[in-house]
Amino acid sequence: MAKPKKTPRPKAETPKGFRDYFGAEVTQRAEMLRRIAGVYHRYGFDALESSAVETVEALGKFLPDVDRPNEGVFAWQEDAEADKPGDWLALRYDLTAPLARVYAQHQNDLPKPYRRYAMGPVWRNEKPGPGRFRQFYQCDADTVGAPSVAADAEICAMLADCLEEVGIPRGDYVIRVNNRKVLNGVLDLVFGFDAVSEDKMLSAVYDSETRKDEILRAIDKFDKFGSEGVALLLTGGRKDESGDFTKGVGLDTHQADLVLSFLESRGASNAATISNLKNLLGGAIRGLDGVSELEHIVHLLEAGEYFEDRIVIDPSVVRGLGYYTGPVYEAELTFDIQDEKGRTRNFGSVAGGGRYDDLVKRFTGQEVPATGISIGVDRLLAALHAKGRMQTREDGPVVVTVMDRDRMADYQAMVAELRQAGIRAEVYLGNPRNFGNQLKYADRRGSPVAVIEGGDEKARGVIQIKDLILGAKIAESATLEEWKDRPSQFEVPCDQLVARVRDILKQHGLAGGEAGQ
Amino acid sequence: MAKPKKTPRPKAETPKGFRDYFGAEVTQRAEMLRRIAGVYHRYGFDALESSAVETVEALGKFLPDVDRPNEGVFAWQEDAEADKPGDWLALRYDLTAPLARVYAQHQNDLPKPYRRYAMGPVWRNEKPGPGRFRQFYQCDADTVGAPSVAADAEICAMLADCLEEVGIPRGDYVIRVNNRKVLNGVLDLVFGFDAVSEDKMLSAVYDSETRKDEILRAIDKFDKFGSEGVALLLTGGRKDESGDFTKGVGLDTHQADLVLSFLESRGASNAATISNLKNLLGGAIRGLDGVSELEHIVHLLEAGEYFEDRIVIDPSVVRGLGYYTGPVYEAELTFDIQDEKGRTRNFGSVAGGGRYDDLVKRFTGQEVPATGISIGVDRLLAALHAKGRMQTREDGPVVVTVMDRDRMADYQAMVAELRQAGIRAEVYLGNPRNFGNQLKYADRRGSPVAVIEGGDEKARGVIQIKDLILGAKIAESATLEEWKDRPSQFEVPCDQLVARVRDILKQHGLAGGEAGQ
Repeated sequence: MAKPKKTPRPKAETPKGFRDYFGAEVTQRAEMLRRIAGVYHRYGFDALESSAVETVEALGKFLPDVDRPNEGVFAWQEDAEADKPGDWLALRYDLTAPLARVYAQHQNDLPKPYRRYAMGPVWRNEKPGPGRFRQFYQCDADTVGAPSVAADAEICAMLADCLEEVGIPRGDYVIRVNNRKVLNGVLDLVFGFDAVSEDKMLSAVYDSETRKDEILRAIDKFDKFGSEGVALLLTGGRKDESGDFTKGVGLDTHQADLVLSFLESRGASNAATISNLKNLLGGAIRGLDGVSELEHIVHLLEAGEYFEDRIVIDPSVVRGLGYYTGPVYEAELTFDIQDEKGRTRNFGSVAGGGRYDDLVKRFTGQEVPATGISIGVDRLLAALHAKGRMQTREDGPVVVTVMDRDRMADYQAMVAELRQAGIRAEVYLGNPRNFGNQLKYADRRGSPVAVIEGGDEKARGVIQIKDLILGAKIAESATLEEWKDRPSQFEVPCDQLVARVRDILKQHGLAGGEAGQ
Repeated sequence: MAKPKKTPRPKAETPKGFRDYFGAEVTQRAEMLRRIAGVYHRYGFDALESSAVETVEALGKFLPDVDRPNEGVFAWQEDAEADKPGDWLALRYDLTAPLARVYAQHQNDLPKPYRRYAMGPVWRNEKPGPGRFRQFYQCDADTVGAPSVAADAEICAMLADCLEEVGIPRGDYVIRVNNRKVLNGVLDLVFGFDAVSEDKMLSAVYDSETRKDEILRAIDKFDKFGSEGVALLLTGGRKDESGDFTKGVGLDTHQADLVLSFLESRGASNAATISNLKNLLGGAIRGLDGVSELEHIVHLLEAGEYFEDRIVIDPSVVRGLGYYTGPVYEAELTFDIQDEKGRTRNFGSVAGGGRYDDLVKRFTGQEVPATGISIGVDRLLAALHAKGRMQTREDGPVVVTVMDRDRMADYQAMVAELRQAGIRAEVYLGNPRNFGNQLKYADRRGSPVAVIEGGDEKARGVIQIKDLILGAKIAESATLEEWKDRPSQFEVPCDQLVARVRDILKQHGLAGGEAGQ
C-alpha cells in the first residue's frame, strides 16, 4: 500500500478538481434525485446501486460522449496475492458501463426486459476546469433487452415527466428526438452506397466510418456555428474569430449540401419533418428504416398525450460519437438565462440518451438491445436557480439562546419541545458569555426566531420571542412607522412557546409553520 | 495512467469484497437515510457532502475503532506534472476525517459551533469476509466547536429520535453512555498516580498509555466473555474453547479487580451507577470529573424527557481505542433475533460515537472540541428485516400486456393513464408472441395486476383486469369455494381502468390504492 511522504502539518484542501457541497446544495440535489426516482419507479424501473469500484477489465475502455477512448479513469492496482499480480481497479466513470457488467453478471435473476434506474456520483480523471469537476452526479434510467422503439418512446415520455416533476413547467422544455439510422442513411447517400453494397465494400465502409466520426463532429457544431460554419467544417475547414483553424472533413460541395439539407430538414411540425426526411433520403434503405422508427415513436407518444409541444423530431441532434445505434434524444430547456457575464443565452441541454445495442456483447458475446437516458441533475439545479425557482439557502433553525449557563437544562427542555413539534431548533452551544455573539450566530444560521429566557423571565414564567426576519426588515426600513403595530420582540407565557413560534414561521411562509409536520 | 492487460472477453464480476444492491435494498436504505436526515435537520444540523476522494495527506493515518493505523485505504498516485511528482489520493474510509479537513479548510465560512450531518459510502481496503464489504454506508452527525457536554447530551437525544423515526419503538433500544475520563480515572488508580503526578511521570505515562490500549481491548470483551473472561485477559491470559491462547495484560489481581469493579458498577438506576462510580473512584480527580459530566448529561436529557428507559449510564461501553476523549455512547437494540444458524441472540449495537477533541489540530494546530455519532444504516435495516418490520421486496408494477403487437399505441395510452393516476405501471416490452411469457414476466416482477385487451375486447370497448395476488391465493387454496364470489379476472369498460385497478391495489393494501398519490 502507498506510503505518503511525511509532512509536519497537512494542507486542508480537497484534491484538485474536487469540491465540497454544503447545506441546501446537498438537500436540494437529494430532493431532486428523490423526485426523479419517484417518476422512474412509477414507470416500472427498479433501483440498482452498483459499487463505485469496478475492475478496469469489467469497466471497459470507452466513455460515451467523449472522443478520447481509454482515458480518464482513476485506477489503481490491488496488492499482489501469492504469485498472482493484483487486479487493476477503477472508479466508475458513468453508470452505463456498470449496468453492462451487472446485467451480464446477474441476467438469470433479472426480469427481461430489465428496466433499471441508478443515481450516484461518477468520477473522471480529467483536467479540471472552471465549473468542471472530477466527481459529479449522474441519474440514469435504461431498459435492457427491449428491441422495440416502444422502449425509446417510453423513455422520452418519462424524461418529460421527470422535468415537470422537478419544477420545469410544460413550455419551458422540449425533448428533441433523432435517429442515428437516419444519419447513417444520409452518409450512405454522401458516400454513394446503400445497405447492400455496404456489406460488400468493407474497406470503403472502414474508410467512411472514420470519416463518419469527423462528419458527426462537424454536425454537432450546428447549434453553435449554423449552416455556414458546418459547411466550412465539412469541406475545406473553418477559421474562428481568434484565427484558429479547424481542418475540414474534405467533402465536396454536393456531399456537404446533402448533409446540410439533412440538418435543415426540421419542418414546422413533426409530420413535416418526417416528410422532408423521406424526400431527402429517397431510396437509402437504412435511412428510411430510421425515419419510420421516428414516425412510430411520435405515434406512440401521441397515444400517451405527449404531443409536439414537448416532443420534437430534430435532425440536428447528434449526441456524441460511435456509441448510439438508433433513436437518440436530448432534453433542452427553452428559456433564456443570464450567464455569469450577464449575457442572455439559451440554457440548453440538461439530459440525453439513446439506443445502444452492444452493451453486454463484450462480456457474453450476445447482442442485447438497450436504450436509456442520463439526467444532468447539477445542470438542472443550476437551471432552476438561474430562473429563481429555488431558494439559495436553507431555512435556518430557531435558536434558543443561553442567558444563564447554569440553566442549560431549561434551554434543552425548550428546544426539545420545539423539535417534538416538528420545528427545526437548536440551543446555542458556543460560549454564552457574550449575548451579542449569540445573535450574530443566529444571523449567520439564517434563523427566523430567537428565544430568550433570562432569570427575570424565568421568575415570571415567561419567555421572550424575537422575530429575526421582521427585525431585519425593521432595521432596513427608513421609518419605523409601518412596523409599529408588530414589535419584533415580545413576551409570552412559557406554555405558548411552540404556538407563537409557529405563528411567526407561518407568517414568513417557512416550514414548521403547520401543525403536525 | 494504468493500462490493464488485454483479455479477449472480460469477466462480469464485481471486484472482491464489493456487491450490487437491487430494488428494495436501494429504496429502503434511501428512505432510511432520508428519515434520519430529517431528524438531523430538525436538530439544526446542516448537510455536508464532501468529495469521496481526498489527498492521503489530508485523510490522515488513523481509523477510529480499528487498531491498525495507517492501513486499509484505497490509494493511488496522480500523474506527475512537470517536475513535481503527483499527489497520493485515496477514497475516504469514514466521514469524520473529511469533516476535519472541511472544517480546517472552510472554518471562516462556517457557523461556530458547526453542526453538520453527512451520509454516503466509505471504502476500506480490508480483507473481505462473509457479510463484510469494502464499500458501505455511514450516516454521521457531529458538532464541532462546542466544548460543553450539552452537545453530547443533544447527540444522545437525537440518536434516540432517529431510531424511533426509522421504526424502532421505545423499549426496543437503549442508548448506553459512558465517559473515557471515568475509565482514565480507573486507570489512574490501577497505575497508582493521579492527574498531578501524571504530568511529572512522562515515561510512566507513556508506558501506561501503551498498556491502556491493551486494557481497553480486554474491557471491550466484557459483553462477550463476562467478568471471568476479562479477569483472565487482564492478568495472565485466556485460552478459548478451541485452545487458542490470548496473552494477558499482566496486571496483578488487585489491579484487575479495580477494573472489574468498574465494569460491574452499573446499578439499577442511573443515580445508583453514578453513586457506585463515585465510591469506586475515591479521589481520582479526572475520573470524578468524568462522572460529573455523566451526571450532567443525564440531567440535561431528563429535561428533554429522555429518561432512563432510553438513556443508560453503562461503564462497560468502550467504543474503540485511543480516539475518544470524553463521553462515549452506543445505541443497542434490546430485542432478540434469530441469527443465520437459528440461534437466538441479542441484536446489539447499531450506532455509536463520542467526543474527540483533536480533530482539527493536525491541520491548524488549534484544539477544536468535537462530538458526534455514526449510525450503521445497513445494520439497522438488517434489524428491521430480522424483526419482520420491512417487506423484502418492492411492490411490482401493474403490467399492461400486449395481445396485438400492432396496437402498441393503445397499450401505451393505457399505461400512461395509469401512471398519470400515480399508479406504478408498465407495458410489456419483450417479444409479445407468447402470452404465457408475459404472465411469467408479471409474476417475476411481483405485479399485483395484469391488464389485457385483445382485438375482441377492443371491439367491445372493454378490457380484462386480472388480480394476480388473488389469482395466486386461489391457486394455492385447496377449495375454490371461498373465492367464488371474487373472480380473479373480470371485464370492465375501458374508462374504468384506473378506478378498478385502484380498487384492487386498495384491497391488497398497496401503494397507488389512494387517489391523488
